[in-house]
Amino acid sequence: MPHIELPPGLPGILGPMAFRPEAAKPLTELTEVVLRGPGPLPLADRELIATYVSSQNDCFFCQTSHGAVAAHHLGGNEAIVADVKDDFEHAGISEKLKALLAIAGKVRRSGKDVQPSDIERAREHGATDLEIHDTVLIAAMFCLANRYVDGLATLAPQDPAIYRELGAQIAQNGYRGAAEQVSAAGA
Amino acid sequence: MPHIELPPGLPGILGPMAFRPEAAKPLTELTEVVLRGPGPLPLADRELIATYVSSQNDCFFCQTSHGAVAAHHLGGNEAIVADVKDDFEHAGISEKLKALLAIAGKVRRSGKDVQPSDIERAREHGATDLEIHDTVLIAAMFCLANRYVDGLATLAPQDPAIYRELGAQIAQNGYRGAAEQVSAAGA
Repeated sequence: MPHIELPPGLPGILGPMAFRPEAAKPLTELTEVVLRGPGPLPLADRELIATYVSSQNDCFFCQTSHGAVAAHHLGGNEAIVADVKDDFEHAGISEKLKALLAIAGKVRRSGKDVQPSDIERAREHGATDLEIHDTVLIAAMFCLANRYVDGLATLAPQDPAIYRELGAQIAQNGYRGAAEQVSAAGA
Repeated sequence: MPHIELPPGLPGILGPMAFRPEAAKPLTELTEVVLRGPGPLPLADRELIATYVSSQNDCFFCQTSHGAVAAHHLGGNEAIVADVKDDFEHAGISEKLKALLAIAGKVRRSGKDVQPSDIERAREHGATDLEIHDTVLIAAMFCLANRYVDGLATLAPQDPAIYRELGAQIAQNGYRGAAEQVSAAGA
């Protein structure tokens, strides 16, 4: 049961966003810009970074919903998403993405944990300043989202089908419409 | 030296925000809504929550800049800001704010650390659902900001006068204009 009285039936971050629409607006815009807006990182990579950070933060709703979006961008490949969460250094992803995930994992613990050698590793595999920046911002953003979701003890449905549907909706239509669509579906 | 090439001369979060204006816009809006927009928590209390979380996360730029904004809202009382960072349970603040800071401190570590007893304590001292929500969101937001600032190794000037000036500007004019004002001042 959530710690405060949230609009009923909305899973994860959608509950507090419906509770506080003034904050939900810029938060949704930020999510849209960082995870779907113009930028050098493929959408699947951005969602994998979000999923990995959320997994390390043990946030079930965020890791499952963004994992579903990532899988959708990867043509339904849920195995890669599971591999990245389990041990990204040995997953079937690029060396550049591994280096960026290593940075994201350090940002998750503390920004100060990021060392010049982490940046150097990413650069060696072709990462640009913008890609490194976006990785740090995605990791930092999910340190917000995970705490917002779990700090209020929001609902986290267990049925994987709910997340596959949500992931497909987000992959197709973006984050701006997600709250309304889920609400209308009565999820 | 920052990990990536940021626009020169801008301290803390202002560097990456100038580097990535598409993300800076919703991030600034979110900050403005949560720290200055309509809401039940006094502006000084919001900034004290931001300062405390940033202090616990050891982010020099954020704790010093938001501590300066808090002090400005408190008529220049820098001692209370220092006391809150040092040991808020014995600071000269309301019991309600102490209970909210306790929640913020748990959110900082992990959202899952927040227990029903923490919420109960806040309610006993008069905190509403909206105040609890806003506390959780402020704490979560600064877990983003602290990591964004330190994960890129941004500049953190040591001169307290810079932060007093920045704090006064923000307290008077808000977050939307901060980047431009600091940039124009050549800080």
